[in-house]
Amino acid sequence: MTETINSLGEQGLLKIFRQYCSEVVGDDAAAMGATLPDRQMVVTTDMLVDEVHFSDRTTSAEDVGWRAAAVNLSDLAAMGAQPWGLVMSVGLPPDTQVAWIEGVYRGFSECLQTYGTELVGGDTVRSPVRTLSVTAFGQVPKNQIIQRHTARVGDAIVMTGLHGLSKAGLELLFKEELKEKLLAPLKIGNRILAGNDLVQAICRYHQRPTPRFDAIAIVHKILKQQNHLGDFPISGMDSSDGLADAIAQICRASEVGAKIYWRSLPICRAVRTLAGDRALDWVLYGGEDFELVLCMPFELAEQFVNQLSGAVIIGEIVEGDRIDGLEMRSAFQHFNV
Amino acid sequence: MTETINSLGEQGLLKIFRQYCSEVVGDDAAAMGATLPDRQMVVTTDMLVDEVHFSDRTTSAEDVGWRAAAVNLSDLAAMGAQPWGLVMSVGLPPDTQVAWIEGVYRGFSECLQTYGTELVGGDTVRSPVRTLSVTAFGQVPKNQIIQRHTARVGDAIVMTGLHGLSKAGLELLFKEELKEKLLAPLKIGNRILAGNDLVQAICRYHQRPTPRFDAIAIVHKILKQQNHLGDFPISGMDSSDGLADAIAQICRASEVGAKIYWRSLPICRAVRTLAGDRALDWVLYGGEDFELVLCMPFELAEQFVNQLSGAVIIGEIVEGDRIDGLEMRSAFQHFNV
Repeated sequence: MTETINSLGEQGLLKIFRQYCSEVVGDDAAAMGATLPDRQMVVTTDMLVDEVHFSDRTTSAEDVGWRAAAVNLSDLAAMGAQPWGLVMSVGLPPDTQVAWIEGVYRGFSECLQTYGTELVGGDTVRSPVRTLSVTAFGQVPKNQIIQRHTARVGDAIVMTGLHGLSKAGLELLFKEELKEKLLAPLKIGNRILAGNDLVQAICRYHQRPTPRFDAIAIVHKILKQQNHLGDFPISGMDSSDGLADAIAQICRASEVGAKIYWRSLPICRAVRTLAGDRALDWVLYGGEDFELVLCMPFELAEQFVNQLSGAVIIGEIVEGDRIDGLEMRSAFQHFNV
Repeated sequence: MTETINSLGEQGLLKIFRQYCSEVVGDDAAAMGATLPDRQMVVTTDMLVDEVHFSDRTTSAEDVGWRAAAVNLSDLAAMGAQPWGLVMSVGLPPDTQVAWIEGVYRGFSECLQTYGTELVGGDTVRSPVRTLSVTAFGQVPKNQIIQRHTARVGDAIVMTGLHGLSKAGLELLFKEELKEKLLAPLKIGNRILAGNDLVQAICRYHQRPTPRFDAIAIVHKILKQQNHLGDFPISGMDSSDGLADAIAQICRASEVGAKIYWRSLPICRAVRTLAGDRALDWVLYGGEDFELVLCMPFELAEQFVNQLSGAVIIGEIVEGDRIDGLEMRSAFQHFNV
């Protein structure tokens, strides 16, 4: 018989939780130390609900846990921060399998280890629906917070990696028949794969999103080399709600327009193969790629794309409130038919 | 017709949220500044689920919001911290009334204002069950964190206020007939009340728990006057799970025993009147009073109870692993029959 958390009891559940928690849990709150010199704290929080944000049909317990960590870590990266620690509260129906929640903690913990941070606390409660609520803390050098409202006319628009692959992975998970399109070898990332390996590699983009702390490390490195003075020159956000949405949000918050270099916008072969005519649609609106969309002077942008493999300048910030001289929505639709 | 969040839409909901949020919400994370000099951060988180932790039958939306804030703030106070900020994620079914969630934010905000802190971020998602997840972070002077495992033999055990009133409030909310016991005037807090006023005052103990930051301020004041050197002399936790539980937890974590001064243990008239023979039961196990149970040298404890109205020395820490020489559970049961 499969063990449920009801038979495990509250103490048993707490015992599992503690295995994945770095601190001596037992006090009312977790002690975190002070912020590092010349750093400040940023905080972000996300709630994930069963059948709204994840599903047993498409996502293993480990992937749910990874995802719960990654979406929050991506928000920290989007602000230019390094992770400091996370807390996770979990609401569970009594018939939840112990194996499921263990899998969630394991995947969560694996993501945290990958990015050098820790689970420092949490709460476990009864709920009729499986619910995860994560809060992540990060630290960012003072005056180097990446925000949405500071893009400037003349800035290059940079994306840190390909878009549309998370959508491609999701489609593959739902539509068995799409797999037939992937029999021939294709380059994905740095590898050439075909068949089942290729399917799995694409699904992984959806299942294991990657917060781009590597991009932030390069930002800091470049700024240090430049001995940069004056206003912090970088703005942006992550593309969790889609590439088009990120560009539009930055433009709206900064009261500027944008010109997109449509011919430079990379669309990877896997997305073309799976999406056909709708490839650009997936790239612009697919969402959940968790790349960063950053605006910065061209001189910095060129150094940045030289140092970060896969990063591309995809446009520039212009005066006005339009994208390619069109209403934001129609600008994207115009190139999307 | 009553407006639901479904008809309001995501943007409308976000607009309500922003009214109660101090920061410019719009970036991926909230910027908080650095910890103050010689302070460190503590973090706590709690999830509250409809029909598990609150109910329309006993709790107004405002009180749900207040409670969600207060339980987290009490955890900060229990660590000796002052609040720095909070985030709240909310999961809502589409048919949730807009008035309900507005009430929650209003009550939450009222509690935060009372204790001089702010809502700095959050998330709003769809969920089949109303769920609130709050994370609170606070700052505490370095080496002055109040923990459970540092109680020492010879310490006095102090409680910051009366126990059993939250339970009394809950009983009154469920059992209409109990109100008849409250026709005669009774002293409650610093007032003498009777009838409906008395009922309401008692219910309020359950509906509006009070984090004891005032007690923490007195702790810091006394320590400052003492010019205290060496190990931090104060241990403890809050009594959210009951007075008996707090004493037992501290003893277990510190590997000590306790002697309780049963004759000094105050039981207020309202609890006696409502609970009858079970008054001590309510005091020990009622729970949710959110007082602090602190252990400290008698010399400090005497100053502390002199300065904090309602605080009482209720026992002392002794060698061993028993309370009053008995197994922890039976120690409390022994005096409870």
